[in-house]
Amino acid sequence: MAWLNRSLIETRKLGEQEIRQVLKRAGELKKLWRGWRGTEFPHLSLRGRTVVNLFFEASTRTRSSFELAARRLGAHVLNLHPEASSVTKGETLFDTARNLEAMDPDLLVLRHASAGAPYQLSKILKIPIINAGDGFHEHPTQALLDLFTIEEAKGSAKGLNVLIVGDIAHSRVARSNIYTLRTMGARVSVCGPPSLMPPLARELGVAEVFHDLRKGIADADVVMMLRVQLERQNQMQFPSLGEYSRFWGLNADTVQSLKKGAIIMHPGPLNEGVEISQEVASGPYSVILNQVNNGVIIRMALMDLIFDGGSKAGGDRRRG
Amino acid sequence: MAWLNRSLIETRKLGEQEIRQVLKRAGELKKLWRGWRGTEFPHLSLRGRTVVNLFFEASTRTRSSFELAARRLGAHVLNLHPEASSVTKGETLFDTARNLEAMDPDLLVLRHASAGAPYQLSKILKIPIINAGDGFHEHPTQALLDLFTIEEAKGSAKGLNVLIVGDIAHSRVARSNIYTLRTMGARVSVCGPPSLMPPLARELGVAEVFHDLRKGIADADVVMMLRVQLERQNQMQFPSLGEYSRFWGLNADTVQSLKKGAIIMHPGPLNEGVEISQEVASGPYSVILNQVNNGVIIRMALMDLIFDGGSKAGGDRRRG
Amino acid sequence: MAWLNRSLIETRKLGEQEIRQVLKRAGELKKLWRGWRGTEFPHLSLRGRTVVNLFFEASTRTRSSFELAARRLGAHVLNLHPEASSVTKGETLFDTARNLEAMDPDLLVLRHASAGAPYQLSKILKIPIINAGDGFHEHPTQALLDLFTIEEAKGSAKGLNVLIVGDIAHSRVARSNIYTLRTMGARVSVCGPPSLMPPLARELGVAEVFHDLRKGIADADVVMMLRVQLERQNQMQFPSLGEYSRFWGLNADTVQSLKKGAIIMHPGPLNEGVEISQEVASGPYSVILNQVNNGVIIRMALMDLIFDGGSKAGGDRRRG
Repeated sequence: MAWLNRSLIETRKLGEQEIRQVLKRAGELKKLWRGWRGTEFPHLSLRGRTVVNLFFEASTRTRSSFELAARRLGAHVLNLHPEASSVTKGETLFDTARNLEAMDPDLLVLRHASAGAPYQLSKILKIPIINAGDGFHEHPTQALLDLFTIEEAKGSAKGLNVLIVGDIAHSRVARSNIYTLRTMGARVSVCGPPSLMPPLARELGVAEVFHDLRKGIADADVVMMLRVQLERQNQMQFPSLGEYSRFWGLNADTVQSLKKGAIIMHPGPLNEGVEISQEVASGPYSVILNQVNNGVIIRMALMDLIFDGGSKAGGDRRRG
Repeated sequence: MAWLNRSLIETRKLGEQEIRQVLKRAGELKKLWRGWRGTEFPHLSLRGRTVVNLFFEASTRTRSSFELAARRLGAHVLNLHPEASSVTKGETLFDTARNLEAMDPDLLVLRHASAGAPYQLSKILKIPIINAGDGFHEHPTQALLDLFTIEEAKGSAKGLNVLIVGDIAHSRVARSNIYTLRTMGARVSVCGPPSLMPPLARELGVAEVFHDLRKGIADADVVMMLRVQLERQNQMQFPSLGEYSRFWGLNADTVQSLKKGAIIMHPGPLNEGVEISQEVASGPYSVILNQVNNGVIIRMALMDLIFDGGSKAGGDRRRG
Repeated sequence: MAWLNRSLIETRKLGEQEIRQVLKRAGELKKLWRGWRGTEFPHLSLRGRTVVNLFFEASTRTRSSFELAARRLGAHVLNLHPEASSVTKGETLFDTARNLEAMDPDLLVLRHASAGAPYQLSKILKIPIINAGDGFHEHPTQALLDLFTIEEAKGSAKGLNVLIVGDIAHSRVARSNIYTLRTMGARVSVCGPPSLMPPLARELGVAEVFHDLRKGIADADVVMMLRVQLERQNQMQFPSLGEYSRFWGLNADTVQSLKKGAIIMHPGPLNEGVEISQEVASGPYSVILNQVNNGVIIRMALMDLIFDGGSKAGGDRRRG
């Protein structure tokens, strides 16, 4: 239950107490960050540490969020973006990771196109790993920052109706959110074209599967729009972007079916005019920029917990 | 007239007092930098700050200059180079910028291929923006470092004859320099093939338009050579590079028409053998490397003025 | 013989005393690094310094190793990867380097595809340069870290039989290692297909040239496997990867010809299954990850020696 030196690979196995610990620390760090007026941040708990951002998939936003989080806490950050061509063989990921570890970093943040890559590495490396997204599998820090944002807006996730809209079947964001939200007592439903719904929705713990957006959002306290993966559009899982937008996009019209006090979320980057209109994204229901702001905070909290107890433990681990 | 928390989008609107303030601070910081022998620079006025270099156009030199300037003053620097493919739509620039701002940086340095991009962003963001070059519009820090270099060499820009040579019509460097130089009392003329002269030279405040380089430089105290944009050559605005070089290039031969004490400038990177010969670029008239050295100093001065008054104001703004 | 402010271009000219100085400092720094438990590394001898990594060839590992080394000692690191397209002309390398120097960095780490590039730059720049690999010429820090690793494992290089296996003719790693190992009193032999042996092996100081791996390794205390340059395979210097692996690859079978206590090295990255099997690379003879770990340490030692005497000398040089 303690986070010390632990990896975060998936939210599926996180218990309520563990999640609560991250949210609590995030709240404390957010308060500290916002109140800080000096020149040096008063909680440099990662000073002297080296965090490696190993991103096999490009992601300016997520990478920046981890980089800023680590630096705010005083760490050095080494950014690595191996080219896809050099990592086609599985051995190469392991070889890359073992070599990196031999350079004595303290934490590895990994994004990889293959589901399970962070888990595989966690079996051969001694340093902790944070999964920053692996294939269709999980994106745990996204789910934690979403949860933190929901609790900021609604007090608690417990008993809330959360609707996730879009390509649930191929979304690591959806999967990680379903796990954390259910663990925290929310009721999670999904909505989208039948071809994009998860084959085993009930086993995932999904309460209801909607194909009609208006029906789906009628009872929702939280509506989480997923990004349409434009690059997968040629797989023809829905007729056209126009049609997708008309049926499952959130716009000035559909947003009128929302309950009062409901919030709209999106993991970014937005396809404005497709799954969400610009108007709605920057409208009064939207907490999208709060998600971005909280993303850095949640990652600070997680790193802070992993290195809790100060430098000694880490020093031992690094050269253990 | 105070710089505190202000953006720098264009030099066209800068008054003499504002420009003088930057030059003065640059002079102080240059003296401090050159005299410094300790391990920690004694003016870490950006400590705890995060500067984002958002460069939509690649530019190793300008980006490095901003990065070094920010770090010398103690800031963290986040370098972002979004791929052109992902930013073809205007919304994406705004979305990118709003997301970045939500991560609580303190300053945005922006280079963009579209004239007006920094101005557009300055209307929606609360943090200050420094324009690091926008399309054919402006490159204000280049003009300020050029001015600083001119004053170092010639005492004052007032009353000097400055000749800018090359593709004036498409040069943001020329435009920004014309504005600052005229504001400071210099007389600015331009020279080059007719097809590359600005259509409204007189309205820009240009004193004379030369098509003959020897005539143009005869009276010049400062000759500023522009880079030939080789990638635009197929637009056939001049017959060939050889011909360009023969008529408008500065070489051992043409340089003999220069007045004694005149200086030669170039914003870099050089096309040696095209607009300037290697011999002239590293010869006694050239202050080209002084420009590079002063580039870091001017950017330090500007950031220093923007955050003047210390951390408190910035802290308030950042999380205001 | 003192390292202060000196460049490291090649190992060919290093004397035993100079090499010994680097190894000694590396040993001290490794002890300090492993024993360190505080938050701030106790030997920040490069604080306030700027190290530029100028890599014209991509190399995540070597670049990361230099970056981590410089940062551990407190330096800022500026990473630059000019695109090949912009550096086809020799002038551009000089122009790039002169411009960089004008920005007042303290050290340049250079990797370039052309043999001699670091040497050429060392003639025009005032700041020290570390060659991080130049064409087929040299890779001096690799040889120093290899030597350090050998001495850790075997006490001393003096009198050892070292066998280098692979494309000796085109390997800067082999060349640099042959020079340092012979200077330190080792006996160096080489092994591989005749087409990949150096034309003047005897003049290089090579003791024996083997074409049969089993014979070559029978007496070796150290076996250094070189990476097969897969991208040069179409030059047909050996029939096929399969054949190369069968005759000159180290695997569970061939490794049985090794002497007891022998060590296996590889500069990385590995082509597992080609020049070395996964099993052997992570087996008991292998010191490959020690090489990676020591790579950072050796680069720390070298930078530390270059800036020895503290900030004053550097300050003078930087702005001299």
